[in-house]
Amino acid sequence: MIPRYSRPEMVAIWSPETKFRIWFEIEAHACDAMAELGVIPKSAAKTIWEKGSAAKFDVEKIDAIEREVKHDVIAFLTHLAEFIGDDARFVHQGMTSSDVLDTTLAIQMARAADLLLKDIDDLLSAIKRRAFEYKMTPTIGRSHGIHAEPVTFGLKLAAAYAEFTRCRERLVAARKDIATCAISGAVGTFANIDPRVEEHVAKKLGLSIEPVSTQVIPRDRHAMFFATLGVIASSIERLATEIRHLQRSEVYEAEEYFSPGQKGSSAMPHKRNPVLTENLTGLARIVRAAVTPALENVALWHERDISHSSVERMFGPDATVTLDFALARLTNVIDKLVVYPENMQKNLDRLGGLVHSQRVLLALTQKGASREDAYTQS
Amino acid sequence: MIPRYSRPEMVAIWSPETKFRIWFEIEAHACDAMAELGVIPKSAAKTIWEKGSAAKFDVEKIDAIEREVKHDVIAFLTHLAEFIGDDARFVHQGMTSSDVLDTTLAIQMARAADLLLKDIDDLLSAIKRRAFEYKMTPTIGRSHGIHAEPVTFGLKLAAAYAEFTRCRERLVAARKDIATCAISGAVGTFANIDPRVEEHVAKKLGLSIEPVSTQVIPRDRHAMFFATLGVIASSIERLATEIRHLQRSEVYEAEEYFSPGQKGSSAMPHKRNPVLTENLTGLARIVRAAVTPALENVALWHERDISHSSVERMFGPDATVTLDFALARLTNVIDKLVVYPENMQKNLDRLGGLVHSQRVLLALTQKGASREDAYTQS
Amino acid sequence: MIPRYSRPEMVAIWSPETKFRIWFEIEAHACDAMAELGVIPKSAAKTIWEKGSAAKFDVEKIDAIEREVKHDVIAFLTHLAEFIGDDARFVHQGMTSSDVLDTTLAIQMARAADLLLKDIDDLLSAIKRRAFEYKMTPTIGRSHGIHAEPVTFGLKLAAAYAEFTRCRERLVAARKDIATCAISGAVGTFANIDPRVEEHVAKKLGLSIEPVSTQVIPRDRHAMFFATLGVIASSIERLATEIRHLQRSEVYEAEEYFSPGQKGSSAMPHKRNPVLTENLTGLARIVRAAVTPALENVALWHERDISHSSVERMFGPDATVTLDFALARLTNVIDKLVVYPENMQKNLDRLGGLVHSQRVLLALTQKGASREDAYTQS
Amino acid sequence: MIPRYSRPEMVAIWSPETKFRIWFEIEAHACDAMAELGVIPKSAAKTIWEKGSAAKFDVEKIDAIEREVKHDVIAFLTHLAEFIGDDARFVHQGMTSSDVLDTTLAIQMARAADLLLKDIDDLLSAIKRRAFEYKMTPTIGRSHGIHAEPVTFGLKLAAAYAEFTRCRERLVAARKDIATCAISGAVGTFANIDPRVEEHVAKKLGLSIEPVSTQVIPRDRHAMFFATLGVIASSIERLATEIRHLQRSEVYEAEEYFSPGQKGSSAMPHKRNPVLTENLTGLARIVRAAVTPALENVALWHERDISHSSVERMFGPDATVTLDFALARLTNVIDKLVVYPENMQKNLDRLGGLVHSQRVLLALTQKGASREDAYTQS
Repeated sequence: MIPRYSRPEMVAIWSPETKFRIWFEIEAHACDAMAELGVIPKSAAKTIWEKGSAAKFDVEKIDAIEREVKHDVIAFLTHLAEFIGDDARFVHQGMTSSDVLDTTLAIQMARAADLLLKDIDDLLSAIKRRAFEYKMTPTIGRSHGIHAEPVTFGLKLAAAYAEFTRCRERLVAARKDIATCAISGAVGTFANIDPRVEEHVAKKLGLSIEPVSTQVIPRDRHAMFFATLGVIASSIERLATEIRHLQRSEVYEAEEYFSPGQKGSSAMPHKRNPVLTENLTGLARIVRAAVTPALENVALWHERDISHSSVERMFGPDATVTLDFALARLTNVIDKLVVYPENMQKNLDRLGGLVHSQRVLLALTQKGASREDAYTQS
Repeated sequence: MIPRYSRPEMVAIWSPETKFRIWFEIEAHACDAMAELGVIPKSAAKTIWEKGSAAKFDVEKIDAIEREVKHDVIAFLTHLAEFIGDDARFVHQGMTSSDVLDTTLAIQMARAADLLLKDIDDLLSAIKRRAFEYKMTPTIGRSHGIHAEPVTFGLKLAAAYAEFTRCRERLVAARKDIATCAISGAVGTFANIDPRVEEHVAKKLGLSIEPVSTQVIPRDRHAMFFATLGVIASSIERLATEIRHLQRSEVYEAEEYFSPGQKGSSAMPHKRNPVLTENLTGLARIVRAAVTPALENVALWHERDISHSSVERMFGPDATVTLDFALARLTNVIDKLVVYPENMQKNLDRLGGLVHSQRVLLALTQKGASREDAYTQS
Repeated sequence: MIPRYSRPEMVAIWSPETKFRIWFEIEAHACDAMAELGVIPKSAAKTIWEKGSAAKFDVEKIDAIEREVKHDVIAFLTHLAEFIGDDARFVHQGMTSSDVLDTTLAIQMARAADLLLKDIDDLLSAIKRRAFEYKMTPTIGRSHGIHAEPVTFGLKLAAAYAEFTRCRERLVAARKDIATCAISGAVGTFANIDPRVEEHVAKKLGLSIEPVSTQVIPRDRHAMFFATLGVIASSIERLATEIRHLQRSEVYEAEEYFSPGQKGSSAMPHKRNPVLTENLTGLARIVRAAVTPALENVALWHERDISHSSVERMFGPDATVTLDFALARLTNVIDKLVVYPENMQKNLDRLGGLVHSQRVLLALTQKGASREDAYTQS
Repeated sequence: MIPRYSRPEMVAIWSPETKFRIWFEIEAHACDAMAELGVIPKSAAKTIWEKGSAAKFDVEKIDAIEREVKHDVIAFLTHLAEFIGDDARFVHQGMTSSDVLDTTLAIQMARAADLLLKDIDDLLSAIKRRAFEYKMTPTIGRSHGIHAEPVTFGLKLAAAYAEFTRCRERLVAARKDIATCAISGAVGTFANIDPRVEEHVAKKLGLSIEPVSTQVIPRDRHAMFFATLGVIASSIERLATEIRHLQRSEVYEAEEYFSPGQKGSSAMPHKRNPVLTENLTGLARIVRAAVTPALENVALWHERDISHSSVERMFGPDATVTLDFALARLTNVIDKLVVYPENMQKNLDRLGGLVHSQRVLLALTQKGASREDAYTQS
């Protein structure tokens, strides 16, 4: 995640401020449930909500405490206690860090998925609009880079539309897979916490309940999520590659919008390069890079180890922020794409009658020639 | 795909014989539809079914023709014509090779998925049986490899059960994603073939219709399929890793079944090594290796290029055959796993009261101690 | 490794026959050294060489024994004993299976590297010949797919020549890295075998000595080897991609040789598709697929586990056989590449004076214009 | 690259300030050479050095210009002109952006390699020290996680020492591969710049000359560099995994240093978890994640496209910063590792005489028993 390829809304999901706020909400909801169950005083739960909601968490201070105790959740709880006072001792009762961390990550990934779904919707509507605009614009269809049979430019875009519709469905499934809540205490046994606490927190936060947690939410869920992002990234690469091809000098059937003031090359001012779609090709590689580490994260040792954590700290933000940026950039490219129907026609005309060889072959076979002979003749 | 890690039923799905048989069926179903539409004579369609169904395709002969014409589908059609005679010229009318190849691949992958679903069912029932068997068998839960709190061995297996249930659902989705039919001719425009042919073939073969094909079935579908296999492989690795840990000398809470006659080590006869689960760890790496190439296959050029083909010839069989073998091997391992409850108890007892520190911490905080103080005391 | 993408010489390196022959040689050389050291009778060593050299190992029989004892090296030793008789008990003294297996793999990989080095040499000489042939053939240089400044076609090929020269150097280094011998017994301590045995075997087989083996040859060596193959594969993809671009209808500056009798498309007979270079693009993905599993193989548990084995059984042959095939195919493509200098000139002429914008920009700045102004003017 | 896993010295290599400073130096050295060749006035070169050296580049201002012109090098040159004045028009004569960008990246990667080499040296000396400390400390060697034969703890560390020595050599080779300079103008033809400029810049910056650049430095070099980092990361994972195993409750032969004040678990205060080595396992996955995108970057289109750029902006810093951090963390772990020789002895004693089965087998065969019989007896 670097500013150059980031948009603020997605970045905000992964900010420390957001994270600590979610931590607090999980703890506070859990306190509510525990108060309801009589485990802690109702007044304490109330105080925790009131004082915690009003508190402005100091990220640097929490970091400083963590440097000492080398434990992030304990650092936060210590900081939280400064706002809440005495009742802070009722926070986090019977819970373990993973309850907070993993449920938070689930919320962040679900929110990221929501943003990505909106991105895909925007992309779909840009593609749809342009597809109808060029529904009847003839252009040559190419297999192997070689002219084959005529298609329309709208049909090309319709294929992209269908592909991103599939991507959307996959992301909906991946979101569902990831949006689970685990509040089950050390090694996931509910030994010191009532399962109804988990149920309450899940409900309040719009999550489903992890059926069997082993302290951590199992990482096959995250792997599936990142793998799905990787597939979406590859679909982005496909459409970007198409545009790069269409813009090349000899084809020149379409072109990324080139804003006034934009410069093509420090050496060759005349050039209008498809830099956005080339960039999208690279961004796709970045998003996909998260897939393998996410798959490697699945096989944690016994009830849990922490090896997954650094990977997720890195690629949780990286993959979602980059994909969000890429989808928005692609939407923009499609939206403003400069299309040259006359060049499409020129390219279509170039090969003369040759592109109709299939029809000749067909006619010959229908007239009684064997396929082999027809092929040789045509 | 090597014999050592293969089972015959999955291998058969990918045999040339199976492939050519599916090719024939696609062509013959297409002929039926074309005959119904009056494009070709009904008698021809009938002849094609009769003579083609009776034909025994000669793989070596087809290969020999391919070596000459350098085109697999043309080689097959030439061979097919030898059986069908004159009416062979009505076969493949208005179609393109990809119609046959891609629809066939879809059928093979769907069949492979069916087999894998059965494998998962078998695994689930083995896990379930053993989970109930050890439902109340206490064992230490470990986080970071360190003793944490007691769990039961049944609970460990229940977590695996839940994980493979998720894997099953994902595979059902991936199967649906891949099971599509494209019979749309060159660059997918139906220029020389009626869409009703596609509809008919799809219906007969239990596939859905590709909404927008561009000659090829788009490769995001395949990417999603292989990515899903990669996630399942990682879940296998997780359970295999658990057993490897349990079998290590110092833990020794469970052990792979060691058949009479089996040898542990050429140098050290006494050893009983968890070689099956170590092997499963490696097999998981093999299955996952297909994910990245499958993602790289998505961005084909324009309406299609053939770069995906070699990857699929290799990893289509490799990933499914290896995963099938791995699931069966894991089922067998779970089924026969030798469990040592007494060793579990011994390990549980080892750390004395220490494993109860959470409860102490909890009691202290409930009695009024601040969390910080309680932590230091406990 | 599938026949379609295989060449016999590389396949032979990985055959069971070759493997068992190397196993025998390692054992027999070790016997020589042990005899020299007085550990076993000299007559035994002599008998082992004589009878073993004459023996024709029966792969199926060894496999059958392995199915029973579930241990490949023991199965082989049992089979070997049938030929050698009584003295067979002196074979494998103080050694462990890994001594044989890992040293054999090292030999196979070194031989594979030798073949690949020869392949690269052949490729280099084809590139060189064609580079000189077109040394002065002007063609447009393209950045971002857009016409930039003229280059020559020979220069394009010279870049490829330089790249494969680097690949060669890297492979020489990787070969050196992999070509080590470990004969050090269980957990690599030489507890029951003299280090001079290792030294002798290494010398006889042209290997260096593993400085510290832990029973197995450490897998960072193999990882480096496969990573190097992955880089070479990517360089193949680069040159293949160049040719695919040059052959596309609108560019048409070069073309893969199209043999008489070869068919372009089952639907469109006129098409000449760059199917070989598209195929090379896919083969590159296959070779690269071995890199991640090889990296995952490095972190074996303690002194060794067997998880690496299945990965190597699969990707040892797959990656080297596929790369060998790909290099040979690329050599053939370059060797026979049909080049169209007149089309290069036509494309060069297409953009008129525009490609000279850099020179204009330069002249303007030298005459005193600020860079910014010159850029806007030019 | 996130602060949590970063060290300042490596981060500084990738800062915008460092980058712009290198850009300036490349341009200024090139001016020197051009002045020497009489292409630009000597006084201009002098002014450029003087004013540029004194200038404090304003990153935010450059970014603002870039947002307008959408070209980073032009943005920088515009900013630079503000300091240099009129003579700025002599800067960047006949050069193209890639000359600056790619040579800068080469310098950054070479500097990163230097830091990593220092890291490895530090690690090697920590390992060496501890290896000698425990040279004669007996401990059980384990294959498959099962007790095999005794080794010493020093020997375990010696294996790690040998492995990181190999890593060092590989990194030296990768550094050499990456440290090249290209100043060859658009599409690398030297059409508007004298090759002696490149020669001069290379010499001044300690780089070798790119033999055939095609505007960009070919990406096989970068791929090799990242692949090498991936192998080193895997070696880190291996040693980290060893320590994680040694620290697990049942083994407990060694332990990461646990500082006073550090907290083990928010729920279970007694726990001392191997969190550093678990973290290293995750960091290894992060570093390796750069390998595949780097391999995918190799096949740029024609003389260049810009798809590689985003990948390198991301993983250039990410992979080197993370690996630097990981090497330092591992050095620290090894340096302070708490070793428990008495527990090693206890574990050694656990299996009684069983670990000596190899010696029994050996003795039996030497006394005349067949291998098969001896194996069954022992």
